[in-house]
Amino acid sequence: MSENTNNRVYNFSAGPCTLPLEVLEETQAELVDYHQLGMSLLEMSHRGPVFEPIYEQTRRLALSLWGAPDDFDVLFLQGGASGQFPMVPMNLLDKTSRGAYINTGHWVKTALNDAQYSGDIYQAWTGEHESFSRTPDSSEIELQEHTRYVHLCSNETIGGLRFPVFPDLDVPIVADMSSEMLARAIPWEKFDIVFGGAQKNLGPAGVTLVYIRKSILGSLNKSIPRTFSYAAQQANQSMSNTPPVFAIWMVNKVLHWLKRNGGVSEMQLRATTRSKLLYDCIDGSEGFYQCPIQTAHRSQMNVVYKLPTPALEKAFLEQAAEHKLMHLRGHRIVGGIRASIYNAMPLEGVKTLVSFMQDFKNKNG
Amino acid sequence: MSENTNNRVYNFSAGPCTLPLEVLEETQAELVDYHQLGMSLLEMSHRGPVFEPIYEQTRRLALSLWGAPDDFDVLFLQGGASGQFPMVPMNLLDKTSRGAYINTGHWVKTALNDAQYSGDIYQAWTGEHESFSRTPDSSEIELQEHTRYVHLCSNETIGGLRFPVFPDLDVPIVADMSSEMLARAIPWEKFDIVFGGAQKNLGPAGVTLVYIRKSILGSLNKSIPRTFSYAAQQANQSMSNTPPVFAIWMVNKVLHWLKRNGGVSEMQLRATTRSKLLYDCIDGSEGFYQCPIQTAHRSQMNVVYKLPTPALEKAFLEQAAEHKLMHLRGHRIVGGIRASIYNAMPLEGVKTLVSFMQDFKNKNG
Repeated sequence: MSENTNNRVYNFSAGPCTLPLEVLEETQAELVDYHQLGMSLLEMSHRGPVFEPIYEQTRRLALSLWGAPDDFDVLFLQGGASGQFPMVPMNLLDKTSRGAYINTGHWVKTALNDAQYSGDIYQAWTGEHESFSRTPDSSEIELQEHTRYVHLCSNETIGGLRFPVFPDLDVPIVADMSSEMLARAIPWEKFDIVFGGAQKNLGPAGVTLVYIRKSILGSLNKSIPRTFSYAAQQANQSMSNTPPVFAIWMVNKVLHWLKRNGGVSEMQLRATTRSKLLYDCIDGSEGFYQCPIQTAHRSQMNVVYKLPTPALEKAFLEQAAEHKLMHLRGHRIVGGIRASIYNAMPLEGVKTLVSFMQDFKNKNG
Repeated sequence: MSENTNNRVYNFSAGPCTLPLEVLEETQAELVDYHQLGMSLLEMSHRGPVFEPIYEQTRRLALSLWGAPDDFDVLFLQGGASGQFPMVPMNLLDKTSRGAYINTGHWVKTALNDAQYSGDIYQAWTGEHESFSRTPDSSEIELQEHTRYVHLCSNETIGGLRFPVFPDLDVPIVADMSSEMLARAIPWEKFDIVFGGAQKNLGPAGVTLVYIRKSILGSLNKSIPRTFSYAAQQANQSMSNTPPVFAIWMVNKVLHWLKRNGGVSEMQLRATTRSKLLYDCIDGSEGFYQCPIQTAHRSQMNVVYKLPTPALEKAFLEQAAEHKLMHLRGHRIVGGIRASIYNAMPLEGVKTLVSFMQDFKNKNG
């Protein structure tokens, strides 16, 4: 057992967030002198003989571990999912086509706002009048003519809801999966693009993975700058500009960790187990803890709940920290409590949290 | 002396490139358990109480160490200098204004190409017919009516030339200083924007510093996505999207190293000393080594030269590597040899290279 284990806290941050300890220790060991080459990987050219194979291995692992079909490639870009919000319409739309958006909360509202400058887009469904407490059925989504893609957010990190299944639609889906990257199996045939920042399930902040169907590359808009062009980036192995070497290196290590731990199917099982423990605790608390999301639509990554009063929430957060349960404060937009439990969160962390929640309820309920 | 010192090579890569060893060792020591908080800084929220002061300190250091006046702020963005090529016209131009470009080689040609989709731009001077062997005098730059800014690249990393002084013009300069960030003092009154990737003088790849005159923020284009908007990013402390926490953390450490080592004025002196050693060796080689750049315009960061034959260049690179002199191959576009000697390159590295060059010439000249 590592000397770091004893002091380690349980970090429920929404992202950047907890990473596997063994990945951190491996990175630390290699940081200054990479494989006795006399320099750090941080100092090496992205075009050199050391990094290029790391990049290629990371690309292949990211595709194969998630079961992406041969027609998909994955790009490693910068700017986060937020950078993709304008890039999607910029690349996919022309003067006659439109983008549809399924509004499930904060991150789709943001995407709508950012995408409006790059093409003709519209809202095909909104959960706003139901306080964003669920995702829609396929039959509720109203697509207009000439719709090129449907944007959805598979899991709303702030709201704490997710699509339990992806809708059946006649047009390809573009999915923001920032908080569910390699955390659940997905029906690839429905998607043209799947993107997300690494800083939740895959590594540190600073790199964005964009899975893209290769057969659409030829039809994308070519009158855009290299850095923003999926076709240019794909043709240049994501090196139209200098890539974030360190972040990709760490994603490589996290992917290896994921592989050693059973892959996406095992991650999905663990996520179900972890989130069920928390939702069972919430639902069994006789209303002391309340989750605002409809049962079937609850996130397995971000468990959102409230306590009876703001004063109790403050006390909850303070006492949780004393038990090494950190960063449980809900997003400032919605308040309350949020436990983000991504791939690298140990089951023990969730058990400790549940135990603390029961104690806290018994003392204050 | 560190145990890493003995095995360390001299890394002349153009970027990512050599970093101060003490910065790497400090990062390594803190990587897994940051200040005994039980988690890595890589796992911490960008909005939390640990990272926010680091961000603020980095911002202040980046401004003060380069002597930026009070009217400047600095943003920490993603996407490299390449990401700035479209962002500059996107933010600065409207339907009546134009951007002028001083074409000194590869990076301005690339900027011209990337900027064309976001506004009305034109070439105000080109060195193409002189093989990009010099920068222009102010009198040669032909500005047209309604020019909002003049884009220049202070130092062409591939070509190996730089502006010895910045031109006197009637419109503000936007400078791509990727390879000279905090490596020379600059006349801030001439600039509206100065930008550059960190991966040469300031840290690892993955963060781009954009110095911007605050008084222009109010007049910038507002109809652009948050991530690409200087005004939105400045209003949100560069956190319109999740910032690259690790890269900013390392920039902080490099800035502290720079401060301990005498600041920008000392970096400038060292750059002059280092580059003079190399150019003296080249010019004293009776034509064995040839630098294609006019003397007054030669880069102090990227020393570019050729040998009499490609076979000799191949032998040069192989034998240099045996002396731990690494990554001296010129960019594939121009070939030849390139020694990139940024802030963190020790004088000893350049002396070792010069000594090797003299030996190689004596044996093969």
